[in-house]
Amino acid sequence: MVPTLSQAGFVAADRVGRLGTETVFAVSAEAAALAAKGKTIYPFHLGDLNIPTAEHIVEASLKAIRDGKTTYCPNAGIAPLREALAADVGAARGVHYGVDNVAVQPGGKPVIGKFLLAVMNAGDEVLYPNPGFPIYSSLIEFFGGVALPYGYVEGADRFHLDLDGIERQITSRTRVLILNDLHNPTAAECTAEEHERLAELVLKHDLIVLCDEAYFDVRFEGASRSLVSLPGMQERCVILYTFSKKYAMTGWRLGAAIGPKPIIDIIVTLNVNWESCPNHFTQYGALVALTGDQSGPREIMARLHGRRDAALSLLNATDGIRCLVPATTFYLYPNVTGALKRLGCADHESFRRLVLDATGVSFCTRLHFGNALAGEAEYYLRLAYSGVSTSQITEGLDKLRAFVNAGGPTGPHGTPEEKRR
Amino acid sequence: MVPTLSQAGFVAADRVGRLGTETVFAVSAEAAALAAKGKTIYPFHLGDLNIPTAEHIVEASLKAIRDGKTTYCPNAGIAPLREALAADVGAARGVHYGVDNVAVQPGGKPVIGKFLLAVMNAGDEVLYPNPGFPIYSSLIEFFGGVALPYGYVEGADRFHLDLDGIERQITSRTRVLILNDLHNPTAAECTAEEHERLAELVLKHDLIVLCDEAYFDVRFEGASRSLVSLPGMQERCVILYTFSKKYAMTGWRLGAAIGPKPIIDIIVTLNVNWESCPNHFTQYGALVALTGDQSGPREIMARLHGRRDAALSLLNATDGIRCLVPATTFYLYPNVTGALKRLGCADHESFRRLVLDATGVSFCTRLHFGNALAGEAEYYLRLAYSGVSTSQITEGLDKLRAFVNAGGPTGPHGTPEEKRR
Repeated sequence: MVPTLSQAGFVAADRVGRLGTETVFAVSAEAAALAAKGKTIYPFHLGDLNIPTAEHIVEASLKAIRDGKTTYCPNAGIAPLREALAADVGAARGVHYGVDNVAVQPGGKPVIGKFLLAVMNAGDEVLYPNPGFPIYSSLIEFFGGVALPYGYVEGADRFHLDLDGIERQITSRTRVLILNDLHNPTAAECTAEEHERLAELVLKHDLIVLCDEAYFDVRFEGASRSLVSLPGMQERCVILYTFSKKYAMTGWRLGAAIGPKPIIDIIVTLNVNWESCPNHFTQYGALVALTGDQSGPREIMARLHGRRDAALSLLNATDGIRCLVPATTFYLYPNVTGALKRLGCADHESFRRLVLDATGVSFCTRLHFGNALAGEAEYYLRLAYSGVSTSQITEGLDKLRAFVNAGGPTGPHGTPEEKRR
Repeated sequence: MVPTLSQAGFVAADRVGRLGTETVFAVSAEAAALAAKGKTIYPFHLGDLNIPTAEHIVEASLKAIRDGKTTYCPNAGIAPLREALAADVGAARGVHYGVDNVAVQPGGKPVIGKFLLAVMNAGDEVLYPNPGFPIYSSLIEFFGGVALPYGYVEGADRFHLDLDGIERQITSRTRVLILNDLHNPTAAECTAEEHERLAELVLKHDLIVLCDEAYFDVRFEGASRSLVSLPGMQERCVILYTFSKKYAMTGWRLGAAIGPKPIIDIIVTLNVNWESCPNHFTQYGALVALTGDQSGPREIMARLHGRRDAALSLLNATDGIRCLVPATTFYLYPNVTGALKRLGCADHESFRRLVLDATGVSFCTRLHFGNALAGEAEYYLRLAYSGVSTSQITEGLDKLRAFVNAGGPTGPHGTPEEKRR
């Protein structure tokens, strides 16, 4: 038994008290524990992909090992990958980037911490999306910033960010805007008009923007737009890029920060200090991913499309659940307010547990993406369909539908009208 | 041309002004520029290994890719690797570690930043080795700590850390000791008596220790000792472990923090926040490295041994250079005070440049490992022989010897006695 530091009177640094986490991992652990007991689990909780990485990416990495790329590489990543990222990301957004605008990272996520360390002082106010990726507020507060959440509004055919809420909260101390455009979990994305209004706010209030575009290339129709395309924005925006989603490379941990040279220079120095460089040889795989055959991403999107539609049809056939059709991401964010009432559940968590125990369908709720904002009256789930097959989706969500439509174990709660829904 | 943020009035966060770097990379760039012009360069500046990673490690990683280990893995790393590290590192140090004491990292280096974030408050004093790895003081100051350097003393047959200097500097605000035992660049390592005295100081002053043991398994004779082996130390020490040196895996970026559960728990939460997890499939390679055939590390040490001896014999045949025989690391830290005077050089940097231009021998000096401490009167170089073949060593250091012995381009400087040395 190793004696613990708390026995030795260990006190963590003060900032640790402000460090958050991703509570989705607790859901994963719970689901795994139930699965270990023999229960059939339908894993809609994790945004991972159960799709193999394309063979030519694997082969290029292996060749790089054989070629001796097992040594350190430049701190910012290998030059050909930086060039390819500059070209690919720039072309897709209609702007020009050069090699000096790119710092390769061990995943997209490290961009969040390094960006905040580079631009945010203690006491600076940072606007961030809520619901949203929980790491934003965790790291803002960990490094001494003031995290100001802005929300999303469920419209008739899409979610959109609460631009009024953003504008209302900006003060002279607001320094940074975090924009997750295309949005996890709601799949919201800005219209051209919304981008224009955002760009005006950014210029007027002299903000720096983290554009988390992890899902930029994960879309079923139309074309993604980036805030960096607007006049004056490229010099104020750092893009979080990741290979994880587009190329089914989550476990490879490769991404990049792409933005103005003064910030990228700092991020490269943070690379020197933090991990020296990303893994060397996998960058040759990423290079081939970007520049080689693109049938892989198309096949991934075709599979995700089928899953999305299978999930949507069953969710929208469930009493008290309505789900908008997202054009991007691999998440669904159904409004389940009616279903909660129908099952007599008082809150998100009791609904999640009840459904998990009864049906094996495991998912996150709105509360895994931040605390509810003042005035929030509706209830939402987040279902990731990236890690479940279409047959699992059909089987699991059919159980969910049957369970909710039957009113749960005790029959429907609520008014006679609600019961008839 | 991308408009720069500085044109837009960009001001970096205050902490960026306190961020250091590894100036060795500037030496690398300089050497590369000379090589591009056709000059023969003997690269003694970088602590990288020009030895391939063993085939069974590569094969295990490839098999893991084929087995679908391209998805996220647990934040702390895969359980079998954590178990193997606990067993291996514990056994080598005569202590018991369990899986909860291990957090796998993308390299050894990330342990430094995460450890400091976990235990050090702004204003805390941290003792760190100087000469030493320059990232210690960079990150201490970046995160608001007070970096207090302690030095090393050149003895008759070894370097040893300045224990008196450590003790003298401890105040009520001293919170952390960084110990790089076995030491880059001097190859100093503590004797049993020195460990005992250090342990007393740690207990008396309630310190937490980062034991950077990157070179623990890189040794030519004898056995490495760790401070964690002493009573009361395991609960106060976090070990920085890396696969880079022992297994010729620098570019794989795999290492671990190993220590008391309360600190490791925080470091795992930092993994969640920073990069989610290390690369998944390479951890299976690392697992095989630890648990499989150990002839690879033995062969690496045999090659390094030959290089060390080749370098030592030439350095010690050079006028005004004396070099102790290190039992560990792959660095030499010769005293070149006499050679500097002989060539009429006023400082480390002019000596380095003069020798590089004249001979192509590229190395770091003492000043790449921190600013000189008060009272330092001797001059030192650091030569890494991990990335140069024995024939390159012989050829390059023979040029160095001839150049210095001839007194440089103008003949020897100094007094008649100095000239005869």
